[in-house]
Amino acid sequence: MNVTIEEAVERLKASGIRMTAQRELILDYLYARLSHPSAEELYEAIYADYPRVVSITTIYKNMRVLRDLGLLKEFYVRQTGIARYDTNVLPHHHLYCVRCGRVTDYTGALPLPSIEVSPGFQAHSIFLEVTGTCKACAVLQRPERGIAI
Amino acid sequence: MNVTIEEAVERLKASGIRMTAQRELILDYLYARLSHPSAEELYEAIYADYPRVVSITTIYKNMRVLRDLGLLKEFYVRQTGIARYDTNVLPHHHLYCVRCGRVTDYTGALPLPSIEVSPGFQAHSIFLEVTGTCKACAVLQRPERGIAI
Repeated sequence: MNVTIEEAVERLKASGIRMTAQRELILDYLYARLSHPSAEELYEAIYADYPRVVSITTIYKNMRVLRDLGLLKEFYVRQTGIARYDTNVLPHHHLYCVRCGRVTDYTGALPLPSIEVSPGFQAHSIFLEVTGTCKACAVLQRPERGIAI
Repeated sequence: MNVTIEEAVERLKASGIRMTAQRELILDYLYARLSHPSAEELYEAIYADYPRVVSITTIYKNMRVLRDLGLLKEFYVRQTGIARYDTNVLPHHHLYCVRCGRVTDYTGALPLPSIEVSPGFQAHSIFLEVTGTCKACAVLQRPERGIAI
């Protein structure tokens, strides 16, 4: 389930965290405009519209606060060491486009395998990362990035 | 398929890369002794047996060479931003223990879902990360690390 910007604002206020213009801007881009951004992408998107209003350090600080409050999940695509932020905090799977690097959620029903995958290993959850080419990249014939394994 | 230490040595020599005592030590721990180590874990394992012989910088440099030659894959567990090295270079899945942080391969047959998961998304591959508790940690009742999401 995606956390909404309203829920995030409520939760921050309830935790005694002051709403500033900077914080509101970050929440707006994170919860209402972007999908699975990295801190750098979030920074660049805000900078394009509001130059010199929010610093990358402020972005990182806010991501830590939001993560600690359970309002987002930090995750890594298998092939990259760049932290991305997911506002969908319930278990779900990811589609990863190797051309544009975009991550989208996959929440539909999948015939998941049995979780008794290895003797003695007690499985708690299964996460699936489907790597491929998104519709937009296929149409635009964008080249593949060099990071896919 | 796991790359063997013999194959790695052959390939490095064929690429004109000189075999040094340091490099041999790294290859031995990486291909014959450890499983999915991070650079730090590889460093610590070697240091415990051969203090001050190999530096962490040397480890990182060698990992880059081996990766560029296709002799290992660098990957990230979904919950952590720490690069790990996989000597199994063919597609396979991972079991991740949230207690000891150990990663093990799962290569057995799984009833994988259809890869037509989203309209317009052309899937190339599916990767599965099963999170849980390994046998050793269950027996020893090790506590969970704070990094699982």
